[in-house]
Amino acid sequence: MILIALFPAFCFAGEEDSTFARKIFDEALTKGRCYEMLDVLCNDIGARLSGSPEAARAVEWGKREMEKHGFDRVFLQEVMVPHWIRGDVEKGVIYTSDGKENRKVPICALGGSISTPEGGIKAEVVEVHGFDELKALGKTGINGKIVFFNRPMDPKLIITGPAYGGAVNQRHKGAAESVKYGALGVIVRSMTLALDDVPHTGSMKYDSAGVKIPAAAISTKGADYLSVLLKTDPNAMFHLELSCQTLPDEKSFNVIGEIKGSEKPEEIILVGGHLDSWDLGHGAHDDGAGCVQAIEALRLFKALNIKPKRTIRAVLFMNEENGLRGGKKYAELAKKNGENHIAAIESDAGGFTPRGFGISANASDIEKVQRWNHIFEDYDLLRIEKGWGGADITPLKEQGTVLIGYRPDSQRYFDYHHSSIDTFDKVNKRELELGAASIATLLYFISEYGL
Amino acid sequence: MILIALFPAFCFAGEEDSTFARKIFDEALTKGRCYEMLDVLCNDIGARLSGSPEAARAVEWGKREMEKHGFDRVFLQEVMVPHWIRGDVEKGVIYTSDGKENRKVPICALGGSISTPEGGIKAEVVEVHGFDELKALGKTGINGKIVFFNRPMDPKLIITGPAYGGAVNQRHKGAAESVKYGALGVIVRSMTLALDDVPHTGSMKYDSAGVKIPAAAISTKGADYLSVLLKTDPNAMFHLELSCQTLPDEKSFNVIGEIKGSEKPEEIILVGGHLDSWDLGHGAHDDGAGCVQAIEALRLFKALNIKPKRTIRAVLFMNEENGLRGGKKYAELAKKNGENHIAAIESDAGGFTPRGFGISANASDIEKVQRWNHIFEDYDLLRIEKGWGGADITPLKEQGTVLIGYRPDSQRYFDYHHSSIDTFDKVNKRELELGAASIATLLYFISEYGL
Repeated sequence: MILIALFPAFCFAGEEDSTFARKIFDEALTKGRCYEMLDVLCNDIGARLSGSPEAARAVEWGKREMEKHGFDRVFLQEVMVPHWIRGDVEKGVIYTSDGKENRKVPICALGGSISTPEGGIKAEVVEVHGFDELKALGKTGINGKIVFFNRPMDPKLIITGPAYGGAVNQRHKGAAESVKYGALGVIVRSMTLALDDVPHTGSMKYDSAGVKIPAAAISTKGADYLSVLLKTDPNAMFHLELSCQTLPDEKSFNVIGEIKGSEKPEEIILVGGHLDSWDLGHGAHDDGAGCVQAIEALRLFKALNIKPKRTIRAVLFMNEENGLRGGKKYAELAKKNGENHIAAIESDAGGFTPRGFGISANASDIEKVQRWNHIFEDYDLLRIEKGWGGADITPLKEQGTVLIGYRPDSQRYFDYHHSSIDTFDKVNKRELELGAASIATLLYFISEYGL
Repeated sequence: MILIALFPAFCFAGEEDSTFARKIFDEALTKGRCYEMLDVLCNDIGARLSGSPEAARAVEWGKREMEKHGFDRVFLQEVMVPHWIRGDVEKGVIYTSDGKENRKVPICALGGSISTPEGGIKAEVVEVHGFDELKALGKTGINGKIVFFNRPMDPKLIITGPAYGGAVNQRHKGAAESVKYGALGVIVRSMTLALDDVPHTGSMKYDSAGVKIPAAAISTKGADYLSVLLKTDPNAMFHLELSCQTLPDEKSFNVIGEIKGSEKPEEIILVGGHLDSWDLGHGAHDDGAGCVQAIEALRLFKALNIKPKRTIRAVLFMNEENGLRGGKKYAELAKKNGENHIAAIESDAGGFTPRGFGISANASDIEKVQRWNHIFEDYDLLRIEKGWGGADITPLKEQGTVLIGYRPDSQRYFDYHHSSIDTFDKVNKRELELGAASIATLLYFISEYGL
């Protein structure tokens, strides 16, 4: 009795909070719109690499979609982006050392790679598992050859993100490292835990001063096949042909929509994903899911007539995949305009069933975000803890923004990631909606109580 | 220092436990066999409803598989099972009240239904959402009609199991209830949260004294279509034709394999799933996954040369879907033979990513199972709590057995459940393996420490 008398506001707030969370989840699960939004983005627009006509169409789509939902302000933020194209020719063929064609293997150019000369390159293959091995082999072992990076993602890691992190330097820097020893090209085992015939692309980077050599991903089954063959035929050759090229930078845009805060409009909470995708598949999980969840989060406020106390902003970043130009531009302009982003939530880990949020902030801010853990428990988000925010929002870090990464289940993400099978049908409607509701709920709490 | 001196055994055990858990997960994730076992069970054997030739083949397969892995004892347990067959004709057609054919809709007979007369039945449709509505309509509203049960699973429930539980009485008892008011047949909205053209079968039961009428499931899109049509044309008709029948009971078997305990062989810990499936699809998630996880759990002990202190037993139950005869027979024989099952773990909720275990026991036993929660946390199993064990193991309850249900993520389960799309390709290799490792780890702890 006394306790209730002393803390009526607190008790009331607690109840209100769980009621609002329930409303948000109910709306998302019964009248949610993110699944149909994703259908359009994937099946009508499709793959949308920075600089492509599809990326331009996605910008128009994002703007239109936000306007349709009646956000207070919808605007574009211009940013120059790289424009790399795959071209029409992609060929990987294994030859035995006696010169006979052995088999074709599924490959795809890594994003940013140069083309091979017309007709391709053909050279002996040397298999390595990391840069140390490369160094140990040195010029003698590498010169004039194609380097085959074949260190798999570690299947023993329970969360797949760190397994990706532990293997991706081969893709990202494999060419730059190999060329130091005279390699002619590189082929890299696809960054996936699945054993199949699907090659996975992704960004790679040359040293600005170094010579450039072509770089491709090979499917995991292709990689296993080649590795076995090399054991009995160490002088087997690989024929690699790529026709990709980098065109001049293109003008593109971040797409932004906001609902103005009623009490502290100058405090902004961002929620975002990236609008660009790789040029294979439809970028359904990476990161169509994050985009439609960001739009849906704000739409849920409108649909439920929730007027946020602080400003909430949905941002579809351009060019996360091969440059991060959108994320950098956004942070630059936020600083220039003296904007105060108290928190930024990114969804860029797929549209899978929710597990929690990763928070990149100091211990006290992490605790603040954890104030609502008991409510998220009801929705099966049990991991709200220190962790990574997301690539696009990382440039806001130096402005003191609390960065929060939406964390769905990670098991299937890399099966699809950056590949031709990252398509709409791989996304489950409820899992996508639960993610949108989770993000909207956290957005609501922060917009209501601040950090 | 003092603490360590006082509790050396405890500290040591703690470390050993997490080391063993790690070994089990490593083996399952790098050299796991359950995915290839499931491939055979689904793609070589396929659907295996009790009494079917495929079910008999599955029994042979299960026995062979267990023998191959060198379990100490592999045996069959005879049980008579129902034998219902779908037949060749399944037809659902909507007619408008002016007698014109309007459209075909995807339907399938419910398991246990009688057939319609040849040529089917054609009658007006009355839509209801539950038995109260049925009662309110009474004979006047129901007599001579086909009752259309259209209460959806509640999408607002976060875990899908309770949503199923809240709707499934329409399927199970819809015919028995409707016939009281003179209905000619029933069609029931499929038990799924997905909106699609896939009908989902499942068990139904007539009152033993009552008249029997045919019963079918209609796809959710078909149900929505019919419901909308009835609003403008309340006298629309439905033509239902089914050719299913119940044949005499067949002899079948539970398949059992065990590894004898080295210290307390008389204490048995069971791990199981059910070998039968519905006759549509391949029973991949329901419950091929549970069967291969049970076999894999014991295989992991063999592969890692772990000698359990207590006896561990993998059981593939027959006839969970339409009779539970295997589960009942198993418990009956356990009692008769004076066996002591200290715990039984069932996996029958799909081969999805692990979330935890549900425990059906008294508070003190639940706490005992929760002793290892800190270890399961490392593998992202965060819900180890009071809950349901599983249908097949429930008959053991009265013998004091602690019942434990493996609890994977529930979002996608009912998309596939009891339907033609519950096929091998819907199962993710890692998710299946993580489940097998989780189950094997709990099995290890209980076999090591008892309850």
